[in-house]
This record gives sequence, C-alpha cells and structure tokens, in this order.
Amino acid sequence: MPLYECLTQTGTLTQEQRTEIAEAITRIHAEETNSPADFIHVFFPEIPAGQMFTAGREAAPALLRGVIRAGRPAQVRESIMRRINDLYQDVTGTSPMKILVALFEAPAQWGMEGGEILPEPNQAEEDAWFAALRARAAEPERA
Amino acid sequence: MPLYECLTQTGTLTQEQRTEIAEAITRIHAEETNSPADFIHVFFPEIPAGQMFTAGREAAPALLRGVIRAGRPAQVRESIMRRINDLYQDVTGTSPMKILVALFEAPAQWGMEGGEILPEPNQAEEDAWFAALRARAAEPERA
Amino acid sequence: MPLYECLTQTGTLTQEQRTEIAEAITRIHAEETNSPADFIHVFFPEIPAGQMFTAGREAAPALLRGVIRAGRPAQVRESIMRRINDLYQDVTGTSPMKILVALFEAPAQWGMEGGEILPEPNQAEEDAWFAALRARAAEPERA
Repeated sequence: MPLYECLTQTGTLTQEQRTEIAEAITRIHAEETNSPADFIHVFFPEIPAGQMFTAGREAAPALLRGVIRAGRPAQVRESIMRRINDLYQDVTGTSPMKILVALFEAPAQWGMEGGEILPEPNQAEEDAWFAALRARAAEPERA
Repeated sequence: MPLYECLTQTGTLTQEQRTEIAEAITRIHAEETNSPADFIHVFFPEIPAGQMFTAGREAAPALLRGVIRAGRPAQVRESIMRRINDLYQDVTGTSPMKILVALFEAPAQWGMEGGEILPEPNQAEEDAWFAALRARAAEPERA
Repeated sequence: MPLYECLTQTGTLTQEQRTEIAEAITRIHAEETNSPADFIHVFFPEIPAGQMFTAGREAAPALLRGVIRAGRPAQVRESIMRRINDLYQDVTGTSPMKILVALFEAPAQWGMEGGEILPEPNQAEEDAWFAALRARAAEPERA
C-alpha cells in the first residue's frame, strides 16, 4: 500500500497518459503523506466497451480508486482526492462528471510488503519497519 | 458511488443480459435508497476461463459486488442484496449456490464525483451537494 | 466469502501455478479459520504488460488480496497473510519485495451466498446457516 487503480474503458488512455498519470499519482501521494515512492503502486485495469453503465445506460466513466493506510488526518485524504481528480481531468480532458474518485482507508496491519506487516503511518513505526526490511534483505535466501 | 461490479467468466453474459442486469440494479438501488439514477454505476469485468476457483477447483461463480455509502439502515443493504441475488438468478438461470453477493459500506467522504466529496446519505446534505454541483457546472471551464 | 484475488501481469502464471496457488490458498484459509472449502473462492485477474507501475515506473508486482469475515483474532489474519506470501514466493520464485498482500475484513452481514446472508464466524451461527442452506436446497426451484 498504497494501491491506486485507474479503471477505464479499454483504449481510453495512451501509454504516455498512463505514464503521466502514474507519475503524478505517485508524486501526489508522496507529497501529501511524506511516503517513499517505492511502495506506491498504480494499476490500470480496463473494461471492454459496452460493459460499463451509468444510470442504466452504456457509459465510459473513469474510476480512480485507492486504498491507503488508515490513521492520517481527513484533510490528507481529501487533498489526495482533489488532486487526483484534477490531474485526471488535466491529462485527459475528461469532464469531472465522468470521473469517480474513491479513497478507502484500511488498517496498516491488513497489508504486507516485502514479507512484513505494514507499519502504522507514523515516523517511529515506519523507521523500525524499514530497518526490519533491510535486515531481511541482507539475510540469505529462503531455501 | 454507488458502484456495482458484476464479475463473471468471459463469455457468460450476452449484451442483452448485461443491459437488463444494469437497468435492474440501477432501479433496485434507486428504489431502496431513494437515490437519483445518475450516480449509479454498474461495471461488468470479466475473467478468462480457467482463472476462477472454488474449493480449489476450476469454477465459474458470479460475483455481484457493490460499494454504497455508509449510514443507511441494515435492512436497506439486506434488501438490495436479496433483490440483486434474485435478479441475477432470474436473468441468467444461475443456481444461487454459484452467486456471491457482497455489499460494502464506505463513508461518504471517501468518495468524490463531479469534483465534489460525496454528501452523507440524507436529504439535507444531498440537496446542498446537488446545488454545489449545479453551481460548479455553471462555472467556466478550468483553463 | 472468503474471496481471494491473485492479480498479476498477463502471462505471469502458468495454469499449473494457478491451480497450485488456488489449492494452497484454499487449504491455508480452511486450516487457519476451520472453514469448509466450498465457500473459498480464488480468482486470477490479469493486467496487460505496461499497465502496472511502482514508484512511477513500469513494474509487475503480484497483488494477493482477500476479503474475509470480520470477527476472528488478529493472529489468524496475520498467519494467513504470512503463509500466502510465502506460498506465492515458493511457487513462483518472486522476490518478496514484489509481492503485495492485503487481507480486508468485512462484516459477515455484508456477504451473501446461496441466497443467504453470511453467518458470523462462530460454530453456532455457521451450523444454523448451513442448515438453512440445506433446507433451501431441498425446496422446489423458484418459478
């Protein structure tokens, strides 16, 4: 975590747009939470034309959905949401009425990376966590 | 929000069935929550044959998964779940043993549409929210 | 529920690996929670190359994401996470730095299978639930 997904109709985004969006989401999340970029993931799943509906009719909204660790101020989550919404609008020219943003909070202990349960989002726990990860990386491989 | 996903094995549903299911889920959600249809989204992601397992064996269950705003009575959520289960069974003839329904509640402030954080699910906040959205739509475009 | 998803870049896993992973996740969940295998689902969605990013650069991490019923001890969740992480590493040889594990807890009443809202994760409620399911299965089909 964090894990962001940018879900669109197949063919909506060019590879250049994907790269620009992924870089920008990574920068936004890092700036707003003071997190290292190495654990920020952005996926771009797609759904074929004709398989998304709004108000019961075929549509092609973009869904920007993320899961972040719980425990930060609400204004951090809100700022991330606003910036991601504006970013997508700027890169693609999509009307905000067709952009859905959802940012879910999950307890840190529900996530694991590098084989270690994630730390709470504060400096002391994160420092200890990175130290544990470095120690593990220095160990010989599992047989 | 709400966002519903109807996840099936590729090729399970015809376009007519998708349309029928999307219209029915939209109607069910609108009736049960007294919500306008314009913010009800239904997506149909697919997974290729051989990539779904139940009890460790290849299978092809249907997953009907939604995220709705938290704060409504439990009986509303339960009624939506029952109606969606019955709807999918009626449209496709699938055994209920192969239908999974999951309806997650998320705080309204975790979602954004039209560039505005979602309101709590009550009339006063929703009225103010729609007014803000209309005001925004009347503004000149962002440069 | 439980529902596990093993999300990878398209072409990462062979069918033999998928089967091995699905069987092992099913066994791990059943052992850790004392649950019957019939309600354990494992899906393998894929994302084409070039559509996953870590730290703003193209990458191909594996995401092992599950949703289980809330109400079990934290050590059960943690043990499932550790075993799934090690399992994926063993089957695929992937570095743990490229394996993301997330295990979300959701209230039992947010899920439905076989047309019945799920029971809380305790023996008494589960026994009653299976009895209700068997009674329903013995009924004539819905018209």
